[in-house]
Amino acid sequence: MNSKDRLSALRRAPGIVRIHGHRGARGIMPENTMAGFRFALACGVKVLECDVQFARDHTPVITHNARLSPDAVRGADGQWVDGPGPLVHGIGPDELATFDAGGLRAGTRYAGRFPDQAFLSLEPIPSLDDLAALLARGEHDDVWLNLEIKSSPHRPEASPPIADMVAAVVAVIRANGLERRTLAQCFDWRVLVEMRRQAPGVALSFLTALAGDAGHGGDAGNDEDAGNDEDAGHDEDAGNDEDNIYPDSPWLAGLATGRRDEDLPRAIADAGAQAWSPHFADLTRAQLERAHALGLIVNVWTVNAPRDIDRMIELGADGIITDYPGRVQRRLRARGMGWV
Amino acid sequence: MNSKDRLSALRRAPGIVRIHGHRGARGIMPENTMAGFRFALACGVKVLECDVQFARDHTPVITHNARLSPDAVRGADGQWVDGPGPLVHGIGPDELATFDAGGLRAGTRYAGRFPDQAFLSLEPIPSLDDLAALLARGEHDDVWLNLEIKSSPHRPEASPPIADMVAAVVAVIRANGLERRTLAQCFDWRVLVEMRRQAPGVALSFLTALAGDAGHGGDAGNDEDAGNDEDAGHDEDAGNDEDNIYPDSPWLAGLATGRRDEDLPRAIADAGAQAWSPHFADLTRAQLERAHALGLIVNVWTVNAPRDIDRMIELGADGIITDYPGRVQRRLRARGMGWV
Repeated sequence: MNSKDRLSALRRAPGIVRIHGHRGARGIMPENTMAGFRFALACGVKVLECDVQFARDHTPVITHNARLSPDAVRGADGQWVDGPGPLVHGIGPDELATFDAGGLRAGTRYAGRFPDQAFLSLEPIPSLDDLAALLARGEHDDVWLNLEIKSSPHRPEASPPIADMVAAVVAVIRANGLERRTLAQCFDWRVLVEMRRQAPGVALSFLTALAGDAGHGGDAGNDEDAGNDEDAGHDEDAGNDEDNIYPDSPWLAGLATGRRDEDLPRAIADAGAQAWSPHFADLTRAQLERAHALGLIVNVWTVNAPRDIDRMIELGADGIITDYPGRVQRRLRARGMGWV
Repeated sequence: MNSKDRLSALRRAPGIVRIHGHRGARGIMPENTMAGFRFALACGVKVLECDVQFARDHTPVITHNARLSPDAVRGADGQWVDGPGPLVHGIGPDELATFDAGGLRAGTRYAGRFPDQAFLSLEPIPSLDDLAALLARGEHDDVWLNLEIKSSPHRPEASPPIADMVAAVVAVIRANGLERRTLAQCFDWRVLVEMRRQAPGVALSFLTALAGDAGHGGDAGNDEDAGNDEDAGHDEDAGNDEDNIYPDSPWLAGLATGRRDEDLPRAIADAGAQAWSPHFADLTRAQLERAHALGLIVNVWTVNAPRDIDRMIELGADGIITDYPGRVQRRLRARGMGWV
């Protein structure tokens, strides 16, 4: 299998748009849990997106925030974690496995955003190895991992040194034979540069979120993701603002200027990436065409509203990262389209 | 375990309302499929509701309509079934197993009602034995089956003689050791009378749907279920109107008059039932209290809108039959309540 064949599973094809199950399927099942990943697989989703943080000993674990969220994590005693929550990187893997990530805390703004998400109990924070081992099974050998490594130049205390975090991820991916069907995405482009060095077989996707009024944060129609990804009201105190495209941004590893007039697809392609993951509200048709002309796969995040799903299908995105994979399947079916 | 202990799993308790996964979890996964039942179990749902029709040789199979629906069933060739669809009871079990019930047909009114339902392929119509065997496993030994037997006095050609259909169901339930955790519900009360005779260990729930302007069909706020359960626009041509409460109704086996002023809970209790399943929009507080005073469990169907879920929790229903089990879990959690 050559590189081109391999990546075709992520590219748009006639009548086909790829569905990436965001954190499994956050709209329906608790995010970043094995129950959520199993559900997405049962739906026929062929790309599982997840977030990786690091335990104290550098074990990669699947959870979104640098700190365990008081909105979504209970302790071994069943009580919600106290705010702001302990730093994941300060906890050993054995202790981390005692927390329960199976449900959202009633009354929080975050819980209000996912009213159909099932409430489970005794659902642990998985290690990356737990998920990789599931995908290593023969029955899932056509499934890709879209692995978002969480790293921030503003929070070096929240993760191992970059070379160490990449080495820890690569070790798990290689041990499970997933190097050829892993896409690593990151807002912190320094991590992707290091990934290219350590594991050239892993495909890279550069995440972007435009800061300021012109970006998705200023899109009045995008109230669900006001300000930044899904973290509005969720983890604000942890400084989890990942807008990374602005002048002199430390996120870009010197590979781009972050200026408004920049040819962002060009910078990403020149960095050796196979893919680009812009916030869906940031993407223009001209940029998408530019990215495709440069051979980049374009995966948009996080697309949940039917009108936004429709718009991304029409625009021509390769992949749609969504909390509601069933909903995207149905929007595609309504056009006589599919996802595999 | 005595009878009282056994039924307590279905009764409301302080802080607890039971969730019945309707056809599995029709809002999220294809109805009456093993994928749907597995999903409901993964959510922690402890009562699985399903519909039983009968193959030509009387094998009980899990599907809702008397005829395979052109909106929801594909043939072995992947093509949608032609309307009005073949009678299930006219098809042998081997041929029945070749149909695909994994998705809804885009553009139909029925598909439009469940926009988040995943679209699967090669998902067969299960036999009742398939589901019973799953629930017979030790890990699911606290799960009940709420088994709706589809029978209509207006369509005798669509099912075996009543004694035969009950015998076929009882054989499967007994073979899998589920007699003590099966609740049989039916609009056609003749079937329940026969069930009581053949298998007194099976709990009975009398389904009711009030015909006419005073019933749920005339409830302007209940547009999702206009006229009758979920079948509006779905299977109209099959005459699948199951409103069964009206004077001289042939559905009631002479156990009730069907008059407006009737003490319906009394008639149901006198018939030896353990439970009553009214359409949620038909239920009044006075009737609910009357049913509870008579020892009946009250399970309302099919409750999907958040405001209706809230109202049924407040009213005091024992069980909520829903297409969205996660949503009901979350409405309960918002009140500090649970479902087990």
